[in-house]
Amino acid sequence: MEAKVMDIKEMAESILPEMIETRRYMHMHPEVSFHEKETYKYILERLNKYPGLSIKENVGGGGLLATLSNAPHPHVAIRADFDALPIQDEKDVPYRSTVEGVMHACGHDAHTSTLLALLDTVYHNRDSLKGSISFLFQFAEEVQPGGAISMVEDGVLTGIDKVYGQHYWSQYPTGVIRTKPGPLVASPDYFEITIRGKGGHAAHPHNAVDPIVIVSELITSLQTTVARQVAPLDNAVVTVGKVRAGDAFNVIPDTATITGTVRTFKQETKEMIHDIFHREASLTAEKRGATADVLYNFGYPAVINHDAEAEIVRQAAGEAGIAFEESKPLMIGEDFSYFINERPGAFFFTGSGNHEKLSDFVHHHPKFDLDEDAMVNGLTMFMKILEIEQVIEWKHTSLKN
Amino acid sequence: MEAKVMDIKEMAESILPEMIETRRYMHMHPEVSFHEKETYKYILERLNKYPGLSIKENVGGGGLLATLSNAPHPHVAIRADFDALPIQDEKDVPYRSTVEGVMHACGHDAHTSTLLALLDTVYHNRDSLKGSISFLFQFAEEVQPGGAISMVEDGVLTGIDKVYGQHYWSQYPTGVIRTKPGPLVASPDYFEITIRGKGGHAAHPHNAVDPIVIVSELITSLQTTVARQVAPLDNAVVTVGKVRAGDAFNVIPDTATITGTVRTFKQETKEMIHDIFHREASLTAEKRGATADVLYNFGYPAVINHDAEAEIVRQAAGEAGIAFEESKPLMIGEDFSYFINERPGAFFFTGSGNHEKLSDFVHHHPKFDLDEDAMVNGLTMFMKILEIEQVIEWKHTSLKN
Amino acid sequence: MEAKVMDIKEMAESILPEMIETRRYMHMHPEVSFHEKETYKYILERLNKYPGLSIKENVGGGGLLATLSNAPHPHVAIRADFDALPIQDEKDVPYRSTVEGVMHACGHDAHTSTLLALLDTVYHNRDSLKGSISFLFQFAEEVQPGGAISMVEDGVLTGIDKVYGQHYWSQYPTGVIRTKPGPLVASPDYFEITIRGKGGHAAHPHNAVDPIVIVSELITSLQTTVARQVAPLDNAVVTVGKVRAGDAFNVIPDTATITGTVRTFKQETKEMIHDIFHREASLTAEKRGATADVLYNFGYPAVINHDAEAEIVRQAAGEAGIAFEESKPLMIGEDFSYFINERPGAFFFTGSGNHEKLSDFVHHHPKFDLDEDAMVNGLTMFMKILEIEQVIEWKHTSLKN
Amino acid sequence: MEAKVMDIKEMAESILPEMIETRRYMHMHPEVSFHEKETYKYILERLNKYPGLSIKENVGGGGLLATLSNAPHPHVAIRADFDALPIQDEKDVPYRSTVEGVMHACGHDAHTSTLLALLDTVYHNRDSLKGSISFLFQFAEEVQPGGAISMVEDGVLTGIDKVYGQHYWSQYPTGVIRTKPGPLVASPDYFEITIRGKGGHAAHPHNAVDPIVIVSELITSLQTTVARQVAPLDNAVVTVGKVRAGDAFNVIPDTATITGTVRTFKQETKEMIHDIFHREASLTAEKRGATADVLYNFGYPAVINHDAEAEIVRQAAGEAGIAFEESKPLMIGEDFSYFINERPGAFFFTGSGNHEKLSDFVHHHPKFDLDEDAMVNGLTMFMKILEIEQVIEWKHTSLKN
Repeated sequence: MEAKVMDIKEMAESILPEMIETRRYMHMHPEVSFHEKETYKYILERLNKYPGLSIKENVGGGGLLATLSNAPHPHVAIRADFDALPIQDEKDVPYRSTVEGVMHACGHDAHTSTLLALLDTVYHNRDSLKGSISFLFQFAEEVQPGGAISMVEDGVLTGIDKVYGQHYWSQYPTGVIRTKPGPLVASPDYFEITIRGKGGHAAHPHNAVDPIVIVSELITSLQTTVARQVAPLDNAVVTVGKVRAGDAFNVIPDTATITGTVRTFKQETKEMIHDIFHREASLTAEKRGATADVLYNFGYPAVINHDAEAEIVRQAAGEAGIAFEESKPLMIGEDFSYFINERPGAFFFTGSGNHEKLSDFVHHHPKFDLDEDAMVNGLTMFMKILEIEQVIEWKHTSLKN
Repeated sequence: MEAKVMDIKEMAESILPEMIETRRYMHMHPEVSFHEKETYKYILERLNKYPGLSIKENVGGGGLLATLSNAPHPHVAIRADFDALPIQDEKDVPYRSTVEGVMHACGHDAHTSTLLALLDTVYHNRDSLKGSISFLFQFAEEVQPGGAISMVEDGVLTGIDKVYGQHYWSQYPTGVIRTKPGPLVASPDYFEITIRGKGGHAAHPHNAVDPIVIVSELITSLQTTVARQVAPLDNAVVTVGKVRAGDAFNVIPDTATITGTVRTFKQETKEMIHDIFHREASLTAEKRGATADVLYNFGYPAVINHDAEAEIVRQAAGEAGIAFEESKPLMIGEDFSYFINERPGAFFFTGSGNHEKLSDFVHHHPKFDLDEDAMVNGLTMFMKILEIEQVIEWKHTSLKN
Repeated sequence: MEAKVMDIKEMAESILPEMIETRRYMHMHPEVSFHEKETYKYILERLNKYPGLSIKENVGGGGLLATLSNAPHPHVAIRADFDALPIQDEKDVPYRSTVEGVMHACGHDAHTSTLLALLDTVYHNRDSLKGSISFLFQFAEEVQPGGAISMVEDGVLTGIDKVYGQHYWSQYPTGVIRTKPGPLVASPDYFEITIRGKGGHAAHPHNAVDPIVIVSELITSLQTTVARQVAPLDNAVVTVGKVRAGDAFNVIPDTATITGTVRTFKQETKEMIHDIFHREASLTAEKRGATADVLYNFGYPAVINHDAEAEIVRQAAGEAGIAFEESKPLMIGEDFSYFINERPGAFFFTGSGNHEKLSDFVHHHPKFDLDEDAMVNGLTMFMKILEIEQVIEWKHTSLKN
Repeated sequence: MEAKVMDIKEMAESILPEMIETRRYMHMHPEVSFHEKETYKYILERLNKYPGLSIKENVGGGGLLATLSNAPHPHVAIRADFDALPIQDEKDVPYRSTVEGVMHACGHDAHTSTLLALLDTVYHNRDSLKGSISFLFQFAEEVQPGGAISMVEDGVLTGIDKVYGQHYWSQYPTGVIRTKPGPLVASPDYFEITIRGKGGHAAHPHNAVDPIVIVSELITSLQTTVARQVAPLDNAVVTVGKVRAGDAFNVIPDTATITGTVRTFKQETKEMIHDIFHREASLTAEKRGATADVLYNFGYPAVINHDAEAEIVRQAAGEAGIAFEESKPLMIGEDFSYFINERPGAFFFTGSGNHEKLSDFVHHHPKFDLDEDAMVNGLTMFMKILEIEQVIEWKHTSLKN
């Protein structure tokens, strides 16, 4: 019996039911970052179904690398992350999380499901493979220091020429792909500053060193930093998200603590801000006789797409007939940066919002969900990219026979 | 057998053991403001022991008025408060509070004990009484609106010419009396300001209205108010004692709340600050598109001693041989002000600190205590004042025969 | 005698001596914006030398439009400005300004010289002209509202399809062309804010309304605006360049005045900042009982290059063998924006810095100069652009015969 | 013929015409501080008219000491200052200043006239002198470091027991005397702070160090100092009276300068503020990469009246039948402090305002004047004080015979 001839998108559509099944299974069994034991086993079991697939376990601690190869080069890797979040699932759907307080609220289940579907598709077309394709299953994207850096340090990129990745994004509609050359996702740093003054009676400020007044000056001053010391074209954001100071209305407390985040795109900008924060906090405190404890943790590096590979993503969307839009940079964080800081590559957003099916809940919301149909586009994009990279030549026939 | 002739201070010393006993009993059975049922009963029982003593119960709700009278005038009242605080007693003494979480941590037990001793002394010398003496037992000094205002509104001062009161003060050494004409104790106002902005993602401040930045500007601005808008010779203090804003480092919260206190001596100053706070908070918020909820509660009026009566206190100390020092105004609050806003009078501090006996814990501290010997001075002072006011002529004999 | 065959750049080089002569003549006879009478006459005389050249005088008041035409379309215009600055020339060169206090300190002399050379070149090749070329000589670029807007309003663009312009830029080295699609030159707004308080004795701030404290709060607050209320990816700069307040150290003045500039790229951003400035100034003043006079003048719109034409500039540089670099947006102002807000077009910077010949003085500096060799590149670029736009087909022979 | 018996005030009244004549002569011939040559000569000539008067010339450079003595003790000194101000007299009166740009705009002419009248009176009653009276004519009160300190250092107080002084004050009505024990006149310090940043283009703040933003933060911060670091009951004022920064709206300047004054009553408070200013300015600058030049000049010490001598002033007014009011401290400066920092004494204000005769111009105003009748009170007060101090026993007869 002859196989039906299909184009790439049709091939992807035909595999959607399986992708949904996988995604829902994962959705019902989420595990938080660095604790993805069952998820790891589940993926490994899936990988073990493919004879001849080269599998490297425990990459960087908790990741998996699967490779299909007919020739050493070109060698393109696709990455998906598989960790969930410590959020209580509040959706009312059959595939709701079965784990109390844990939920796939950012779509990593769909990332992994898509990658497994891609693996399956490539495997069934492995005779068309002209180079090598690696499938990177990454743990712990949500929590610093993340899984990517340890996978890279463990040598996961050895022999690999390029890396691609995606994120389903429910604030973009299903049917659109977005990316851009250069800065795509910001670097999110974390800071916590405690001003240590000297407590006392509210009525005797001169005998105390009031940390609340100092921390207020500091918050104002940090905004001025953004406005004056960061170059206007280097886009930085400093947000203090939390202030804790004092317990009583009539007592000057000993300390005041602020925590917040800094978003930047350039390494030099974040290093400059890191230095300024230390200087500002310590001098603002010293000015009034207090001291400052400054904790400033660098977040994931910014995701800076390589120009040529971002162009390939655009081209892939065009050839696949999926709408493409130039993205604005996003101020979130993403440790895919560790991969493309080492190899040429690009990251893109696959729209997964659908107002007809879903309410508009942002990622990390207890009612977050995504349009599963978007997985057709995610899979199609990877298939197209691999084709353009000339690592495989799709036969455009049915996937299985 | 002839009575031993004693001077006033010797008379006071002879009654010290009873004062200590009373004070310790009260110390072991403290009750918080507006809930002083057993304390009230205890005082009433004590009053009922004196035949002929005129007693008015439930004055203003929970106070007691006792009067001894030979002539309507001069009529001098002495006031003591009797409430305790919701503080866990952490002292290791035999007379430690027996009530979990409640403690006489401000010395009101000693105030009442002294007033009861004064009553007893006057009673036993009532044939020397030339006018009238009233004993005001006040409930609920620690918690606004306090007991004084309702006692005054209930007519407790009817017929009374003058009012005196004291506070034992452990930050002054036993053996010293301090007061001053004019402003003695500040008026303590309470404020709570909530800035209502618009929460959002830390990375997108332009889509949010950041209440933390606004509240920081406000805190700084309120200090400038003190420095620029209050007359330099009107002493005001504005203290923000508590800031609560946000729960996560990477989320701009909807609101930020500050609570604090304002200390002033003049009614017009506090009214000006009240108005400024409303204006500053609302305009600082409006500047950035937020709103402000401002709660500003006026505290007790400042205690402003009458000049002549403050001079009588000084004279009484001099004649009694107790060291007198001009006081600086204290920035605490005290509702004795309601009495001397209605009648001439004065309030003074009786030193009750003693480094040889006690550690130096401030009032309201879980380990606060006072030097009980100071009660001799407190009692002596009232006896002298009554003498100077020519309401009684002490026989200088033993108290009891 | 046969003409020597030359490529475009050789053609431009051969005309350099004339360009230098023209530029130096203009450099020695500068006139400030809106007062360029002699310069206008000089250009007009030069235009009058070309029989058949269509000349429109007094365009928009003080501009000139010259057109050579073989066919109505394509019709491409090239613009040069010709005004100088009220700056004293402090250079020690033979072609130093002969006018006291006036100087071509921004290179507009070279712009005009290049455009005249282009005209001459086109004129001598007018048989190769396939459409129309217009030469826009613009007055008053340096002073708002500038000459461009009135030339546009006077219909200077009638019949014209596209507009190109350039700026010699001595902070970029000779030999490089820089531009970019989209935002290239910022919009420079001007503001002046006067806080009207109430003067008084330095020792009695409570009887005064101190405008210095208010204006200080305002300056700090305006920086926060940039940091919080402007989207991080919309690049805005707010600079207060001047503060004037008070005359004596011991007197609180009535008023304090700040003047400054705002630089933005988007109309909506500048409108938002305009609104915020009015609100911030008036509410910050009102907070303390003062008022604010806010003058906010919108500057030239930002120069936003059209994508296709910016690409043509890049292509022109490539074909001409001149180094091209993607520009960063510049935060200066330029009223070329009025032209390309009406027609497709692009603006670019032609490097004219040369450390071997010149010291590195910025534009508007009394010792500013430019590398005259750069005019070869400026001329070459326009010739190439016209060629790419298919409005002329260069014969690549000698210019004159 | 028998002398008419007069009381002290009548004696003073009888000498008023002479006081007016002297005062007007001086008013017409004012000299600025440290340049009072003719005034000095004029006073010396007046002193030389009294045979037997002990005169010490050039005291501390430009002062005069005259002494009448019958016994070494008690020895009381009265001080008057005699310098004028660099202000153009704009009054329209016959005794208007004849010196361009110089004017007795603070009443020192009346001080000296009164002291000369006192000398004359004492001289004519010298047989009633029981101790010694010194007349201190002080130069240069208006300009720091003032004449008092050098007169004191020159030993002018040798042998003197007490010192009194006064100031005519046109903001108080004629007929009232005001003073108080303790702090009477503040100490006025001067400061000038220059922030040295790094200038640059308004559009490139990141390449500059903006001194205007820094100085704004500093001004706000200095107010917080008053509000938080100075004890609420130590009354301090910090006023920035002048800001100078930048020349152009579109250039970030290199520097910004503020000048202002600090008013305090305690040496320790001013020293604390001095230290805080250095620390605040340098650290606020350092925070942003700038530096600060801080000039902080201590002004005259505060005038702190001795309690007993202030009481004598009150008593003198009472006995003389002149209204007495408790003064509030004044935030001006006065170098009489150098005298009473060395000897017991007191300073007081003699009301010289009269709405029926004079417009209400403040001291140092070009139209300032005083009610000359007030000199009767000034003279009477000194006569009474000398009597109370038992250094002279007035015969209450006519002054001259």
